[in-house]
Amino acid sequence: QMRILISNDDGYRAPGIRYLADALQTVAEVTVVAPERDRSGASNSLTLDSPLRARKGENGYTYVEGTPTDCVHLAITGLLEHEPDMVVSGINAGANLGDDVIYSGTVAAAMEGRFLGLPAIAVSCVSFQPKHFETAAQVVLALLRRLECEPVPPETILNVNVPDIPFDQLKGWQSTRLGNRHRSEPVIRETDPRGRPIYWVGPPGSEQDAGPGTDFHAVRNGYVSVTPIHVDLTQHAVLEQVGRCLGDTLEPS
Amino acid sequence: QMRILISNDDGYRAPGIRYLADALQTVAEVTVVAPERDRSGASNSLTLDSPLRARKGENGYTYVEGTPTDCVHLAITGLLEHEPDMVVSGINAGANLGDDVIYSGTVAAAMEGRFLGLPAIAVSCVSFQPKHFETAAQVVLALLRRLECEPVPPETILNVNVPDIPFDQLKGWQSTRLGNRHRSEPVIRETDPRGRPIYWVGPPGSEQDAGPGTDFHAVRNGYVSVTPIHVDLTQHAVLEQVGRCLGDTLEPS
Amino acid sequence: QMRILISNDDGYRAPGIRYLADALQTVAEVTVVAPERDRSGASNSLTLDSPLRARKGENGYTYVEGTPTDCVHLAITGLLEHEPDMVVSGINAGANLGDDVIYSGTVAAAMEGRFLGLPAIAVSCVSFQPKHFETAAQVVLALLRRLECEPVPPETILNVNVPDIPFDQLKGWQSTRLGNRHRSEPVIRETDPRGRPIYWVGPPGSEQDAGPGTDFHAVRNGYVSVTPIHVDLTQHAVLEQVGRCLGDTLEPS
Amino acid sequence: QMRILISNDDGYRAPGIRYLADALQTVAEVTVVAPERDRSGASNSLTLDSPLRARKGENGYTYVEGTPTDCVHLAITGLLEHEPDMVVSGINAGANLGDDVIYSGTVAAAMEGRFLGLPAIAVSCVSFQPKHFETAAQVVLALLRRLECEPVPPETILNVNVPDIPFDQLKGWQSTRLGNRHRSEPVIRETDPRGRPIYWVGPPGSEQDAGPGTDFHAVRNGYVSVTPIHVDLTQHAVLEQVGRCLGDTLEPS
Repeated sequence: QMRILISNDDGYRAPGIRYLADALQTVAEVTVVAPERDRSGASNSLTLDSPLRARKGENGYTYVEGTPTDCVHLAITGLLEHEPDMVVSGINAGANLGDDVIYSGTVAAAMEGRFLGLPAIAVSCVSFQPKHFETAAQVVLALLRRLECEPVPPETILNVNVPDIPFDQLKGWQSTRLGNRHRSEPVIRETDPRGRPIYWVGPPGSEQDAGPGTDFHAVRNGYVSVTPIHVDLTQHAVLEQVGRCLGDTLEPS
Repeated sequence: QMRILISNDDGYRAPGIRYLADALQTVAEVTVVAPERDRSGASNSLTLDSPLRARKGENGYTYVEGTPTDCVHLAITGLLEHEPDMVVSGINAGANLGDDVIYSGTVAAAMEGRFLGLPAIAVSCVSFQPKHFETAAQVVLALLRRLECEPVPPETILNVNVPDIPFDQLKGWQSTRLGNRHRSEPVIRETDPRGRPIYWVGPPGSEQDAGPGTDFHAVRNGYVSVTPIHVDLTQHAVLEQVGRCLGDTLEPS
Repeated sequence: QMRILISNDDGYRAPGIRYLADALQTVAEVTVVAPERDRSGASNSLTLDSPLRARKGENGYTYVEGTPTDCVHLAITGLLEHEPDMVVSGINAGANLGDDVIYSGTVAAAMEGRFLGLPAIAVSCVSFQPKHFETAAQVVLALLRRLECEPVPPETILNVNVPDIPFDQLKGWQSTRLGNRHRSEPVIRETDPRGRPIYWVGPPGSEQDAGPGTDFHAVRNGYVSVTPIHVDLTQHAVLEQVGRCLGDTLEPS
Repeated sequence: QMRILISNDDGYRAPGIRYLADALQTVAEVTVVAPERDRSGASNSLTLDSPLRARKGENGYTYVEGTPTDCVHLAITGLLEHEPDMVVSGINAGANLGDDVIYSGTVAAAMEGRFLGLPAIAVSCVSFQPKHFETAAQVVLALLRRLECEPVPPETILNVNVPDIPFDQLKGWQSTRLGNRHRSEPVIRETDPRGRPIYWVGPPGSEQDAGPGTDFHAVRNGYVSVTPIHVDLTQHAVLEQVGRCLGDTLEPS
């Protein structure tokens, strides 16, 4: 039987991870190792300066006081008796579209699985207060069936965003590119009760590149968006251009 | 005069950022906004749930109790009176080569600048205890001169790694791709003084893809490595393949 | 009906707080506001620089990402619709005897209640891995019945330590003074996997003043220890002596 | 020569600790071990679950990413080659009067010294933005001279509050009892930019018991307030009363 490691960034008590674990348990041997508390926005942050601890929660899941990346790293390189066959991260309460993926702990957990050699999927439900986690859970099962015939390419993870609607209202799949947003709104400046200035990170910008082919467009039209994300960040297309610009000699100032 | 925003992930008191600021001050108007303390490994982590505060340090730099991404975000979208023309992050005490870039706060600070629309460079000194920060500082100045004629392509940041040797011993530049490492070493399991298990994230794996053309190879041979990093994570090359695999229909289980 | 606010320092998911809430629900209207995670050793630490958030847990308890003091402060001065009549903190998994009380988050939660004008009790089960929380819960009920006739003196909280044995094996009550321990064991010096020194706070010292009359002695002999703790830290007995020593004049050096 | 360990809760870079260290260096061998950053409000909080690290700052002081209590504990039980003869904590930027002492990290650092067997003093400058740290520093020197003849009683620390005025305007010393305040102001409820409720701990209450004999009264009238604080929290005066109330028998409910 297939072994699946599940993690997320909303914490081991979040409803989304329970829907995911319950669905995957029907087709695989499932282990959950997730952050103790909400670590949204944690990106690929990894804890290097202090030790990690793993504990068993009342729901049977293992939780770690650490980041999503810590959880997957710890699980695969030390905690699990058997290496899993795949990592699935989610179901995130909220979209991970376009530029969001850079900051996302959900995507980071999947990426850490890929770094450690495993196929990996990140799944998000496109809604602030999801009502249809079961739809996203069904989508993951359907996706796993597809991947049986054609596996995820190496160096790639799949970033899946599912509209928050009943499964039978989904229009289908679309493989998409990441769209992007206009620049974020400015930080919000306030004054704390002691009269000192504080700043809140503002909302993301509105959609800029969100036309046909993008993940934004797919979910807005009722499709499941599946975006292949690469793990090698080299911008190969401009390597030569950069080389030309640098030239041969490196002169002191 | 050019305006440059400087940040890092080692904290505003780290020697590397001082070398960088001192060098750039000779050619630009420089502002430093950096984390209060060492945030290595913070990746693109962004603080969403609590407010940020910015204070002025005894060295004149502004520090933020937050991540490198927080610093650049706060500076550009709220703190600075004038928008900078460029973001330079570093000089990191330690290499950011191959897979390291995913976790790197140094690279993340540059990436946040790029997201907000600015050219951005991340600079690291390849040594655990750097002795030649001034070499890396000189390299940044030389790089800026090059970029005057041919700017960094949009959607790209430059990740620069400089060998920790005197400037005149550098062999030159190389534009490189990210190499990669073998899988990380396992977490290190220990027992705390109260008898409970703890785990430390282990060292990165040894080099796997580190041959000619990679950043590893360049610095090992005395060259400055300059890698163009893209900010759009879409793996365009496999988009079609993923589309084929998904097929047309999405069936419930 | 009496209204009781319950908090602790082991976190809102700890078994001890559930035993306490379940027992008190039989005689009072109970509200639980407790830390999101284990905050043992937090003492009276209060969060001044960032805002607090209160959320409802799956078990119906309210949790706060903050200290025990934060929880009681927030509950009484803002969260609760009706002012409670009493604060009960616990049941702590582990003794709070002698010098422990200074560091204890369990005692601090009670002390915050007292500061805000309410009678307050801290309850601990004397065992690292308690097997008889229900004994301590019964003891609290018995104590509340006693306090109906004679209330806790103002400026005082009661620190209750209960042996971890079945209720019918308890020998009775003792009102005790805090004993004390020999000096703590030294910190434990280790080296982290990157070769850098780290230090763990060592175990508390062995018992020094632990004879008849102390809390140590009571619990070791099967009694429930009840120590009145004052909230005014002035050492009145030496006020005059200090005045004499200071003398009348304050000379510059 | 006398050896003095200095700590504080404002962090090793705070101006107050520098004034204190500079003054004490004229009469003693001084070592500074203080928190890396501002830990005001930390009380006696002690870090049990993760290891501590000590580093040397650019100003020669040792800093610890931890609480004031951690700093003193680590210094005395592990870091210092020679046991100090005394602990002095401060100079705090802000008063520690009345009920404040329970939450104060400044007082806690002194208390930890006392727990470990050493005479200990906490010093605060009564002003939000002190202009006369040198006054408080001179007061400490004067106090040390007084203590040569008559040492601090065991089980006691001295909590010193100094008006923020030039030394020659001080009226003299007063040995005082802690006053107290009215109940704190309620928490301040706000809404974060994402529309969710947050709460800030409000300002302390106004003075309630602040008449002659109290620390509030002394500093308001231009005197240095010296309050003996005890470390044994037992409320001995009501021990018997509590015993009577408990009675002999402990009945199940």
